[in-house]
Amino acid sequence: MHSPAAKVSGYVVLMIVQIIFLVLFWLFVRYEKTAMPLAIDAEDAGSANEHVSKYPQFQDIQVMIFIGFGFLMTFLRKYGYSATGFTLFMAALVVQWAVLMKGFLHMEGGKISLSLENIIDADIAAAVPLISMGALLGRTTPIQLLCMSVFEVALFAANEYLALHVFSICDCGGSITVHAFGAYFGLAVALMLRPASDQNEAGKLEGASYTSDIFAMIGTTFLWVYWPSFNSVLADGAGGERAILNTFLSLAAATVTTFVVSALVSHENKLDMVHVQNSTLAGGVAVGTVCNLLLGAHGAVLIGIIAGTVSVLGYRYLTPWMTANLRLHDTCGVHNLHGMPALISAIASAIYASMATVGEYQSELQDIFPAMMGTNGTETKIMGGLGRNATSQAGYQLFGIAVTLLIAIGGGILTGAVLKYTNFRNLKKDEHHQDEHYWEVPAAENKEE
Amino acid sequence: MHSPAAKVSGYVVLMIVQIIFLVLFWLFVRYEKTAMPLAIDAEDAGSANEHVSKYPQFQDIQVMIFIGFGFLMTFLRKYGYSATGFTLFMAALVVQWAVLMKGFLHMEGGKISLSLENIIDADIAAAVPLISMGALLGRTTPIQLLCMSVFEVALFAANEYLALHVFSICDCGGSITVHAFGAYFGLAVALMLRPASDQNEAGKLEGASYTSDIFAMIGTTFLWVYWPSFNSVLADGAGGERAILNTFLSLAAATVTTFVVSALVSHENKLDMVHVQNSTLAGGVAVGTVCNLLLGAHGAVLIGIIAGTVSVLGYRYLTPWMTANLRLHDTCGVHNLHGMPALISAIASAIYASMATVGEYQSELQDIFPAMMGTNGTETKIMGGLGRNATSQAGYQLFGIAVTLLIAIGGGILTGAVLKYTNFRNLKKDEHHQDEHYWEVPAAENKEE
Amino acid sequence: MHSPAAKVSGYVVLMIVQIIFLVLFWLFVRYEKTAMPLAIDAEDAGSANEHVSKYPQFQDIQVMIFIGFGFLMTFLRKYGYSATGFTLFMAALVVQWAVLMKGFLHMEGGKISLSLENIIDADIAAAVPLISMGALLGRTTPIQLLCMSVFEVALFAANEYLALHVFSICDCGGSITVHAFGAYFGLAVALMLRPASDQNEAGKLEGASYTSDIFAMIGTTFLWVYWPSFNSVLADGAGGERAILNTFLSLAAATVTTFVVSALVSHENKLDMVHVQNSTLAGGVAVGTVCNLLLGAHGAVLIGIIAGTVSVLGYRYLTPWMTANLRLHDTCGVHNLHGMPALISAIASAIYASMATVGEYQSELQDIFPAMMGTNGTETKIMGGLGRNATSQAGYQLFGIAVTLLIAIGGGILTGAVLKYTNFRNLKKDEHHQDEHYWEVPAAENKEE
Repeated sequence: MHSPAAKVSGYVVLMIVQIIFLVLFWLFVRYEKTAMPLAIDAEDAGSANEHVSKYPQFQDIQVMIFIGFGFLMTFLRKYGYSATGFTLFMAALVVQWAVLMKGFLHMEGGKISLSLENIIDADIAAAVPLISMGALLGRTTPIQLLCMSVFEVALFAANEYLALHVFSICDCGGSITVHAFGAYFGLAVALMLRPASDQNEAGKLEGASYTSDIFAMIGTTFLWVYWPSFNSVLADGAGGERAILNTFLSLAAATVTTFVVSALVSHENKLDMVHVQNSTLAGGVAVGTVCNLLLGAHGAVLIGIIAGTVSVLGYRYLTPWMTANLRLHDTCGVHNLHGMPALISAIASAIYASMATVGEYQSELQDIFPAMMGTNGTETKIMGGLGRNATSQAGYQLFGIAVTLLIAIGGGILTGAVLKYTNFRNLKKDEHHQDEHYWEVPAAENKEE
Repeated sequence: MHSPAAKVSGYVVLMIVQIIFLVLFWLFVRYEKTAMPLAIDAEDAGSANEHVSKYPQFQDIQVMIFIGFGFLMTFLRKYGYSATGFTLFMAALVVQWAVLMKGFLHMEGGKISLSLENIIDADIAAAVPLISMGALLGRTTPIQLLCMSVFEVALFAANEYLALHVFSICDCGGSITVHAFGAYFGLAVALMLRPASDQNEAGKLEGASYTSDIFAMIGTTFLWVYWPSFNSVLADGAGGERAILNTFLSLAAATVTTFVVSALVSHENKLDMVHVQNSTLAGGVAVGTVCNLLLGAHGAVLIGIIAGTVSVLGYRYLTPWMTANLRLHDTCGVHNLHGMPALISAIASAIYASMATVGEYQSELQDIFPAMMGTNGTETKIMGGLGRNATSQAGYQLFGIAVTLLIAIGGGILTGAVLKYTNFRNLKKDEHHQDEHYWEVPAAENKEE
Repeated sequence: MHSPAAKVSGYVVLMIVQIIFLVLFWLFVRYEKTAMPLAIDAEDAGSANEHVSKYPQFQDIQVMIFIGFGFLMTFLRKYGYSATGFTLFMAALVVQWAVLMKGFLHMEGGKISLSLENIIDADIAAAVPLISMGALLGRTTPIQLLCMSVFEVALFAANEYLALHVFSICDCGGSITVHAFGAYFGLAVALMLRPASDQNEAGKLEGASYTSDIFAMIGTTFLWVYWPSFNSVLADGAGGERAILNTFLSLAAATVTTFVVSALVSHENKLDMVHVQNSTLAGGVAVGTVCNLLLGAHGAVLIGIIAGTVSVLGYRYLTPWMTANLRLHDTCGVHNLHGMPALISAIASAIYASMATVGEYQSELQDIFPAMMGTNGTETKIMGGLGRNATSQAGYQLFGIAVTLLIAIGGGILTGAVLKYTNFRNLKKDEHHQDEHYWEVPAAENKEE
């Protein structure tokens, strides 16, 4: 009777994409030297492999991507299969694509060197379309999501290269390049796919059930717990330890603030699970870009307090306003969890950069702000000449977020237009937020509820 | 109509507490040297940071605190938001407070040095009020819980200092200072808040649903899996490896024993999920204080068997008796999971200490029992003179648990009195074990069930 | 009225087994030297303990065993207590038994040396009966399961010794010795316990509910995320890094393929949660035996694509056929997740072994294929003389899987016969897939649904 929610042809295209990946891996990817056997006459360096010392942090990030994001999105009452399943599907596709895309930007001798570092980067890249998915949750087909993620990751890799290697901004925890990019890209797509004005009211399935809210807490708590690994994985030495400490404290302060503000602004002063599931994590985003800087414990806590407050107020006032006035639904409220906290992080990075001195950062200055030291490595093309001063670096931080927003929003609008006006199957209003259009759902259950 | 279950003023007080923390962090806390940049002319020590080598274990403990405790307490059918949410709220507040409180006891030059070690300690401290929360689950407001946790952690830090640095007891896995303290403090508070004698019967919400029981198993299994990290994180070298091995074996033996004893003593020989969720973990508590000693595999297994047996029998016979006769509800049965197994651990520590010799422990004796070696470090003030003998050390182990019980129960009674007789809102019987008094609960769901 | 589903006598026997373990630990097990105190006059080697460097990977595997397997099996609508509970029960029993059984094969001076390595091996051994449990899920009593696991682990240890130390096959991730053994042993037991031909239709409880399917995704995602740790834990250096990379890529490719093939072959092109929960993991099994070889990224991706395809087709066509024609129910479809992908892995290992050269593997050849180098260590008894050539090694790989299948199926038939025809209580058809026969299930809930 009714047409299936996802076309077969879409799945076939995804299979072809997978096979193209296979061919590209075959043509371009080789193990890095550290993952190759030692020459038979080389001295044995022992069994310890320094190059996998980040493996525990990689695993923490894996949990964040696959369990954290997946379960955070199970809060919708009838969309749990899709939340966990499509997260797995999208992440599995994106990690391969990210190895290739990011690899193409750093090839040596026409080959991509594959090591643990590449799959850490790939996991971080997978966060980007998963954030965007949060803005669209329940209102696209899986085919649309997957195709979006392929476009998005390519743009993300380009923007990240620009921000880190051309503008030389600092962005240790990726709030600018990952969170802001993912959030605003997703919001732009959502804007393009927004409902007609006579279909703007929230559907009854656009909410949680008691059980689905608890499933979502699995996602929240794992993201909370492992966030220090996400922020610190690309930092080394003392900077890595600071990234851990600052992220931990910012999260803790954001969490306390979230509960308090949630109670103060909510109906009957009851706590709201949406705030608890999401705004508690805003501290991790807001501290991201600056997590390895010399914030001090108080700096981290202050950022957390601001992030928790802004995020809860966003959920309480801004999101309903955007739904009513812009018809922008933002199902998971990624603007409040990723978007605004990332802007806070970018602003904080400009403030701290403007105060950075050699006297304070000593030997780390050239790692954290390479353009300020005049030691441009082989890959770093410093804009604005050598030996940027602190004020100039602060300006570049703001420039970095501005360019990121531009590329993300522009790319999102284009992608959204492609998803809407080309041959993709678009969901109708009454097909939103329901697993049963793409999944075989247990029959009895389906009737009961 | 009805007054909200938590007063706004309480949340405001918590916000003020958070801001006081911010000020204290600003005044007193500085990064430790390991987390500060190297001088620009210092030789680069490489990217490896020895000081974060415990990071993977820290992350395991984070999972135990936030996911383990949180989900273990979701077993009540209508209290899952509170179990997971208040765990997050309390732990986020306590970790900050613990960094400060424990820091004040170890200041250098008027400042607290912040490093990974401090937040490991803070996570361990967070376990203490979470254990107490288990005894009170569903019968307090969040404001009461949070205020309790602030008092409790201050007392905990003082008692821990006394036990470890004044009495010089061994307590590697914290069964005395963490588990016994948290359990008996919580029970003392519960005794103060106990219902009037005509309201003593268990409410219909004081039980599990099929789904909530499975959610609780998430907590159980993560606690089970990561318990070796909790017990071993403060041990080094060979002692750390023994702590892992002994904890693992004790948990395994306690688990097998729990299932068998549960079937033997239960109605119709059916297994009881309460036992499976909790008593399986008693092996981790009971081996805690002695986990780095030379127990041998058989010693660890024996402790596990005893702990599993005692814990199940406690749930089956002692808890109902306490509810009926003392009106002490102990919602999660923390007396059976944390209290009695911690006493077993303390007794075991006296036994093993009484047999400790230099010949056996060699170079580790001074780490494990510093008072026995006469090498008193700067912080260790040995009571009873230098060079304690083994019998004397055994006596101090028992003295340590006795003082801990005294402080925990005394502190709990005082705290309970404050929560009951001052301006705090107390819950009425029919408000117990229900999320909907503090949380916005999905409307449809709420009507359905 | 009705007899309890598990006899008391069975539980008593298990307690006796636990006490026998205690005695065996006391008689035979001692800490390894690395876990013993240094002599008091020895130089301090620092606090770092090289011997626990695999601890983070051990913890990942713990999560796979206790959370991964446990929750993957919660997909049945009324069997969640048993899935999580019996996993815990079985694994706790088996890890102790595996330390002893595998220890007896490697004793030194009549004693088993206990170190972290032993409990890593024990966790891997625990996977074996858990895989078999998947084939039987819901159709045995816990006593039958536990007794089966005791037989099975003994046979597993013998077969593994034969394969690795006598035939000198490579099997880094254990697809042959763990996955194939566990799957075919379980299937053989299931065949022995198959229903009478007039009782062959699937019961209405042999399926998922909406909530139980999401619980199962907890298992799937944790297995997915930590699978690289399982495959790489026994590899060192560069081989370990390759094991991580290959497993990751194979899983990703298998996941994409699973979604696509699931949509293509399912009714109305809807996705099937059974495929998503299981076939996505087939990539981890199929790459297991060869994960440390020089597959290249494309090799790993190709194996993943094949595994995902075969696994989904197995669920869609082969399992229903086996149920209809052989009355073999295979509740979790372990044949599609573990059995066939393990065969693929064995065949791949023969292919890659046949192409292995010293020029390519350099110094690693003697670690990976010890029989090819003629350097037979103390334990390695090379069959077929010294210096096996590549073709011969390929033959041994196939011989290894053949012998494994023979022992697994033979042992499974024998064990199944013991479980069926001796004094064990067997479940009746209408007792299948229901927790309430062994568990106290919440009363209200039970009536409602």
